[in-house]
Formats: sequence, structure tokens, C-alpha cells
Amino acid sequence: MKALITGAAGCIGSDLAEALLARGHHVAGIDNLSSGKLEHISPLMGQKNFRFIERDLEDMAAVEAAMLDIDFVWHLAANPDVKFTEGDATDKDLRQNTLCTYNVLEAMRRRSIKQLVFSSTSAVYGICPVQPIPENAPFPQPISLYGATKLSCEALISTFQNLFGIQSWIFRFANIVGPKVRKRGRTVIGDFILRLTQDPRKLVILGDGKQAKSYLSSGECVQAMLYAIENAKARLNVYNLGCDDSLPVTTIADMVVEAMGLTGVQYEFTGGEGGWPGDVPRFLLDVGAIHRLGWKARLNSREAVAGAIRSTLALMTSAPAVGA
Amino acid sequence: MKALITGAAGCIGSDLAEALLARGHHVAGIDNLSSGKLEHISPLMGQKNFRFIERDLEDMAAVEAAMLDIDFVWHLAANPDVKFTEGDATDKDLRQNTLCTYNVLEAMRRRSIKQLVFSSTSAVYGICPVQPIPENAPFPQPISLYGATKLSCEALISTFQNLFGIQSWIFRFANIVGPKVRKRGRTVIGDFILRLTQDPRKLVILGDGKQAKSYLSSGECVQAMLYAIENAKARLNVYNLGCDDSLPVTTIADMVVEAMGLTGVQYEFTGGEGGWPGDVPRFLLDVGAIHRLGWKARLNSREAVAGAIRSTLALMTSAPAVGA
Repeated sequence: MKALITGAAGCIGSDLAEALLARGHHVAGIDNLSSGKLEHISPLMGQKNFRFIERDLEDMAAVEAAMLDIDFVWHLAANPDVKFTEGDATDKDLRQNTLCTYNVLEAMRRRSIKQLVFSSTSAVYGICPVQPIPENAPFPQPISLYGATKLSCEALISTFQNLFGIQSWIFRFANIVGPKVRKRGRTVIGDFILRLTQDPRKLVILGDGKQAKSYLSSGECVQAMLYAIENAKARLNVYNLGCDDSLPVTTIADMVVEAMGLTGVQYEFTGGEGGWPGDVPRFLLDVGAIHRLGWKARLNSREAVAGAIRSTLALMTSAPAVGA
Repeated sequence: MKALITGAAGCIGSDLAEALLARGHHVAGIDNLSSGKLEHISPLMGQKNFRFIERDLEDMAAVEAAMLDIDFVWHLAANPDVKFTEGDATDKDLRQNTLCTYNVLEAMRRRSIKQLVFSSTSAVYGICPVQPIPENAPFPQPISLYGATKLSCEALISTFQNLFGIQSWIFRFANIVGPKVRKRGRTVIGDFILRLTQDPRKLVILGDGKQAKSYLSSGECVQAMLYAIENAKARLNVYNLGCDDSLPVTTIADMVVEAMGLTGVQYEFTGGEGGWPGDVPRFLLDVGAIHRLGWKARLNSREAVAGAIRSTLALMTSAPAVGA
């Protein structure tokens, strides 16, 4: 495989690059480093089968240039800030998800590249009336700009598959956790560790704390994608990726507090069902389809989260302070 | 109502403007005249409650300016060329549907306008495994750039409803027919009349002629939308609009041939299930939801098509030749 990974300096992208290189594939990685970090891919920089391109997917010429001599695209780049906060630009997801995905598809069409993996999200389902949520859930009504634009990417991929024969694998991820997702409070684990490092006596928890989501480690996510592209051979393949349980936010708070060796931490809840505007407070993914294909997550949500807490804390003692 | 109609010079937009003015509302119409025509709204130009703005929705400043002193937006503007032909730009629908809809939504947010009607399409469903297709059909996989980008518009509307409280009515149209849709062979009726005017001995029919779709007249479409906004009061309202039957393409050819007084016309089929890449060859809409709301099309598909054929031919005898 001569692979191009977009978002290669991200948490999942860099894990994937490592896995593909270990299997003997050639890997080009493109990233604008807006959220990805060079430190994630610096261990790969010396390898002869790896090259890194620091460019933006909004630049169509750069995307087309990056696809020279490529036969498989892993399109993982996206705006990772799922939260929308009053005052944010409302077109960030549109540009970084929808328009960049169009650029990737159009460049593939021009270069006659015929295989694509896309990292979608459980957020495409919105508030789904069917739980656990199957891939053929009722017509989705996303409630976040992140979910809406990821859905628009899926729709473009489905169409490019039909019109131009680009075989595609769309993976709708549960919440992905891992040691690399640790800065800027972007995930619940990083957020809790950051807040407790700043003030170990109290912890502000967004929402009512009863939000419950499904978690998957970045490493298992990469394994699942590699398994699926080898075993699912339809023209358009869509799989939920996650485990079959969920974990309440307050339980994660308890786990972080315990792992940091703290006691008597006061929880303060900001209130409301969701943690932020556009948050889907509770969901369970139906992961029967990927199970039937032959892959199953080894870790449940609690184990995936526990591992991410451990490795994040371990990295912090050997690296600059969180938030630095 | 102080209404803004986007695509006001289009077939449906101009019928809607007329209906709103007749009900005593104030109407501003915006159109870039890329497919809309001034002749459609010229009868309205003198009315004191109507003003026309010739601007492009891709111009965000123009959209925001057009929304001054508006309290209800009817967003009908779109790329009407559903067909994708090899050599076409692949980003036309993305710009004219997705990006323009984002501009409309963002301008509404900035102007605190809280009510929106959107003209969606049965094409969002792709090849649906459930027929007739209900509004909560299984997760859609569009097969045309038109359908994919209309789906992305719906997803943005669903999100802006949730984040910014814009109450919305999304109508998924069957094929809309009427006397104004008569040039450039964009619809099956216009296409057949144009071809038979040029050569009354033979008729090239795209696909195998067995395509069967559901039709609704532009006038009934406008009535249905007006009925629904007065009677459906959810924050997000989604309705299929059409009748409950469909009509095969070859039957439409027979009807046009007969209406034009021709005999012995030779049909030539280009072959294949769909008429063009991205064509959904056969569908039926489940229109039970709009029936339960209290509205039902008076005309079935055959009657709607027959009326459009009659009025198109009548207009041709009193207007410049088709294709001129």
C-alpha cells in the first residue's frame, strides 16, 4: 500500500502511520499542525518509507500534489474541537470537515485513486431514537456543527463512490481516547486532569454529570480499521467502531481523582443534560456489524478510559506540564 | 410575514412570491438569475409589497443585507441541474447548495431571524431500501452531488435549529413540474418537448425508460408549504411533498407525443437503469405525514404531468420557441 494519511500528526493518524509502516507499507502524512503535533510523528521521521508534508487540506493544489504516487487514502484530518462555544466561528467545521473532504475526494478523482478510509463519528446520528444505534439508524438529524459536517462528508463520499468508483470505508467512531489526546482540555480525561492539576480541591464537571458515552482506545481503533479494510469488500462499507457499553462522566471523574491520588475533591456541575451546546448526552453504539465481520474491542469503556488516564499521567511526569 | 425568498425568480419561488403577496405579506426576493428568469417575476415588479434583489447567495454580505427587516426566510435557491455530466465541475452543488445554505443560516443567526423553510428533495434518500420512502427512512446514502449537498443543507439546518433556535420546515420534494420549467431540457417534460420540436420523428429517452418517479405541480407544492407552516409547529418539521403514485418515463413520452399531435414517433433508449449518473431510477414517497397533517395533493402524478405538458405547450405558442 502506498498510503496517504491526512491528519497524520494527530492522535489516531500517528498511531495509524506507525502501524502501516510496521506492516511494510509506504506512508505519506499530510497535516497542517493546527491540532496535530510534530512530536507524535517525530519517531517516524527517520524511516525511509515515511514522508511528512506540512500543508493545509484547504489548499487544493497541495492536496493534489500530496496524492502523487498514492493508491490508498486515509482521510482522518478534521476539526477536533467538537464543542461549539458562543463566539466561535460557525464555519470552522464546514471548512475543515466538509470542504477539506471535498478537496480530498476531488483530488482522488483527478489522480484516479480508488480506495478511501474516512473517520466519521457517532455525532452524525444526533439524538437517535434507536439505542444502541445501528449503522442504518433512522434518518439522522445532527445537533452539532461537527456532526452535521461529518454527515455531509459521508454524503459526498457515498456520491463519489457511486459516480467515480471510489471504494470507501466509513468508520463512525465512539469517543477515542489515548495518551496523545492530553492537551488543551479537549477531551473529558484531559479536561479533568488539567482542572485537577490547577486546583486539586474541586472539579467543575460540564452538564449534570450523567452524560454517558462509549469509549475506544486509539490503538484498538487503528486495529479495527486495518481489520475492516481487509475483510469488508463492499463498494461502500460503513461501520460503527466502539465497544458495547458506555461510561458516565461522573465515573470518569472518580477514576481520574483516584488515579491522581486525590481525596475530598468537591464536584461542581454546570448543569443541564448535555455538557455543551450540541453535545449528545447519552448514546450507545450498536457494534454488531463489526463483531459479525470478526473484530471486537478487547477493552470495554471503563478499561479504555482507565488505560488513557494511566498513560496520560505517566506521560505528564516525563514531559512538560499539561497546559504548558 | 416579512418574507425573504431565495431563488425568487425560479419556478417555485415566483409562484410562492405571488401566493404570499396575495395573502398580504411583504416579500423580498433574491436571485442571481443564473437559472431563474426575470420574466417569472416581472408581473410582481409593480406591487408595493414586493422588492427584488439581484445578488448571489455566495456573497455573504449581500445575504446579510437582504435579511434586514425580514422575519421569515424561504430558502429555495439551489443548483437546479440535478444531472451530473462527465466534464461538469464537481463543486457546483457544494457551492450553490451547501455553502449558500450555510450563508443563509449564518445571516439568519446574525439577524436573529427565527423561521426558515427549506426546499429539500427526494434525492437525499439515495437508493432507499424502504419504499414508499418515509421521512425517517434508514440512514441515507445519496448517489448524486445534488442529493448529497441537499442532505448536507438539512444537517446544517438541523444543527442551527438546535444551537440557535431557528425553527425550520424542511420539505423533501418529489419532481416538481409546471409551465415555467420549460427551457434547456432540464426536466423530462421540457426535454421531450424540445427534442420532438427539433425532430418529430424520433425521441431519445435517457436510460431504459422504466424509471418511475413521483410528480407534483409547482402550484400544489406552494399550497402544501403554506399549509404546513401554519399547521406544523415543531422546532424541526420534515415532510415529504408529493402524491402517492409514480409515473414511468415512457408513459410521459406517450403523453407528450399525443399532446403534440404526433404519430409514429420512434423511441430510442440510451439504456441502463438510470437516466444519468446519480439518477435514482425508481422511487415512491410515503406522503402519509403530510396527509395526517391535513394536506393531500389533488392531482396524481399523471394529472400533474398532463397539466404541465398542456401549459408548457400553450406557453410555447404565445412565447419565443423553446431553446431560443
